[in-house]
Amino acid sequence: MERVAIIGASMTQFGQREAWLQELLAEAAIDCLEDAGVTGEEIEHLYVSNMASGEYEGQTGAVNALAHDIDAMPAYTQRVDQTSSSGGAGMFAAWQSVASGASGMTLLVGGEKMTHRTTAEATDVIASLTHRVEYKHGITLPSFAGLTARHYLERFDAPRESLGKVAEKNHRNGVDNPNAQFQKEVDLETILESPIVADPLRLYDFCPITDGSAALLFCPESVATEYADEYVVVSGIDGATDTHVVHERDDPTVMRGVVESGKGAYEMSGYGPDDIDVAELHDMFTILEFLQMEGLGFAEQGEAWKLIEEGYTERDTGEFPINTSGGLKSKGHPLGASGVAQAVEIYEQLMGEAGPRQVEADVGLTCNVGGFGNCVITTIMEAGQ
Amino acid sequence: MERVAIIGASMTQFGQREAWLQELLAEAAIDCLEDAGVTGEEIEHLYVSNMASGEYEGQTGAVNALAHDIDAMPAYTQRVDQTSSSGGAGMFAAWQSVASGASGMTLLVGGEKMTHRTTAEATDVIASLTHRVEYKHGITLPSFAGLTARHYLERFDAPRESLGKVAEKNHRNGVDNPNAQFQKEVDLETILESPIVADPLRLYDFCPITDGSAALLFCPESVATEYADEYVVVSGIDGATDTHVVHERDDPTVMRGVVESGKGAYEMSGYGPDDIDVAELHDMFTILEFLQMEGLGFAEQGEAWKLIEEGYTERDTGEFPINTSGGLKSKGHPLGASGVAQAVEIYEQLMGEAGPRQVEADVGLTCNVGGFGNCVITTIMEAGQ
Repeated sequence: MERVAIIGASMTQFGQREAWLQELLAEAAIDCLEDAGVTGEEIEHLYVSNMASGEYEGQTGAVNALAHDIDAMPAYTQRVDQTSSSGGAGMFAAWQSVASGASGMTLLVGGEKMTHRTTAEATDVIASLTHRVEYKHGITLPSFAGLTARHYLERFDAPRESLGKVAEKNHRNGVDNPNAQFQKEVDLETILESPIVADPLRLYDFCPITDGSAALLFCPESVATEYADEYVVVSGIDGATDTHVVHERDDPTVMRGVVESGKGAYEMSGYGPDDIDVAELHDMFTILEFLQMEGLGFAEQGEAWKLIEEGYTERDTGEFPINTSGGLKSKGHPLGASGVAQAVEIYEQLMGEAGPRQVEADVGLTCNVGGFGNCVITTIMEAGQ
Repeated sequence: MERVAIIGASMTQFGQREAWLQELLAEAAIDCLEDAGVTGEEIEHLYVSNMASGEYEGQTGAVNALAHDIDAMPAYTQRVDQTSSSGGAGMFAAWQSVASGASGMTLLVGGEKMTHRTTAEATDVIASLTHRVEYKHGITLPSFAGLTARHYLERFDAPRESLGKVAEKNHRNGVDNPNAQFQKEVDLETILESPIVADPLRLYDFCPITDGSAALLFCPESVATEYADEYVVVSGIDGATDTHVVHERDDPTVMRGVVESGKGAYEMSGYGPDDIDVAELHDMFTILEFLQMEGLGFAEQGEAWKLIEEGYTERDTGEFPINTSGGLKSKGHPLGASGVAQAVEIYEQLMGEAGPRQVEADVGLTCNVGGFGNCVITTIMEAGQ
């Protein structure tokens, strides 16, 4: 089967935006088409990754509005929702549309508009993805993160500081990302003394509420070569679920969705953990970066914290940079956009377009986590020229 | 490329149900798996077509809950939303998952839970799919239907009764569908004298608010033959958009999404309108049955009404039966389920399992309309044994 290529990428400024979702989607879409030198009329399939525009804005059908706004009609359109991994699910949908032969040119745009709602309103919508049997007891995603972090630190004898260092690193990387919501360093002391949210996790262990959008353009590799000398190829992609009721999991430090989607993506690509040069992991909570490093084989179980302590995952000095973009932690987390924006960073790294964030990389990986690992999508990309 | 087969189908009782969406989805899913003799563990991809569980029930992530409930983990899951054509979009997603090689066994479940909300609340959510520039003037889908019906009747000199006859026929067909919301005949006089909703359309020109769910099981044809002697094949499928702002369309009686998705599905299948033996059209409003008959080439523009008058589309006596299931009109319209339920009817017709609704058919078609033709998915199916 012919490989699926990515020939354009873009993301809007993440943060508190005045624009509505429809405008944010159009902004990223138009930038992406310009980046690739492709017009709206050439698009055959258009996917919008978005979790909750109905709940947040009282607006549905945003993908149809976007087809209209970027002159993509009569392109086929569909909204992709996989809660906080909607972006990764959009990657899989876009890949399938091209790999199946249904589309010769597929635009994926992920976006979410959230900051016009209060934090309580915004997080209530996110909490609606948890199972009723847990939600009714008030257990939300941050609660799960706190419980898991406590378990991890005690079981593996890891220092609390190691989690803080994830936040410190990702904030430092975000300084060089002009589209990040927070472009500032935060020192470890500030992180460790910030207000408790879900003990032992504190404010700086969490990503913010964010508006923003990101886009990628997919086509068969034979078409990519007509548009560009350099492009990126999706070498492997897979998604997998874990129990929806989190307390039913055997080991709270193992996210089966991470493990299984990683296994699928590795198998498809022919690569293993050692072949990956750079990764964007879903650091919605700092503890998740450890769980993904371990679930994807970048560290043994219970040992990811040691790699952070050793500086192994630092962008400029480490052997294996993680979250060069700044991660969800500093870049922000517009739910439907995040999985796409992760891939935009890997695209730019592989194309040598990452500017001050550039690292040496031939093969990159993204891991996008829906809910508390309820569904996870892992993607492996490489330079295709 | 290997053809994509359907080896199982089911739908729940449509109507006012006590169950929540999560239970409705599980009910159809389990029935479908039993119908095919496949277990949850065998599922590789699981798609849920649903427009608005977040808005209607305050519950998101229903597809992850379903994977859990039917023991499909670690199957990959995704929610598919294309407003009122979410079911058809789910068909396309499921088809792509198999055709791309990403999945060897894909379960699609479409569902919506609506009747616990007032009609005003339920329709407000639907209205949120229209474009702001029209919505702010109070123009909702029923308004567009009324305006279009008025235009059609006057321009093509069609009698008001012809629209009533669509409702009469579909109600008559629904009598023999044990899962239909309304299993009763309604005479033309009652239809024509029912309360005005959007002049000239009256109450019986509209489908009801409904709870329900439907499911289909997809796999490569080579796998289908391992499970069944008889199965159905997806011969053609395509989707297409029209302007999101309805008043920008050149001809209000031509739905470009219908025309283009039909063209794509015909091309892929190698069939034309004359080859189709039975069709399920999206009769959310009676006038839509005319527009789809014309857009898909079953009638010349402005002449569909004559075929109704001649009895050409009657189930038991006509040459080309339309909506043998009772259509959305009598079966009901749980948004995310409808496109799937349309295909369930065609599946049963092609398998010879339609009981008192059975017609002679080798090739069938479904047309699922999102919004007021904002995006349309057309599917052509045939017996595959």
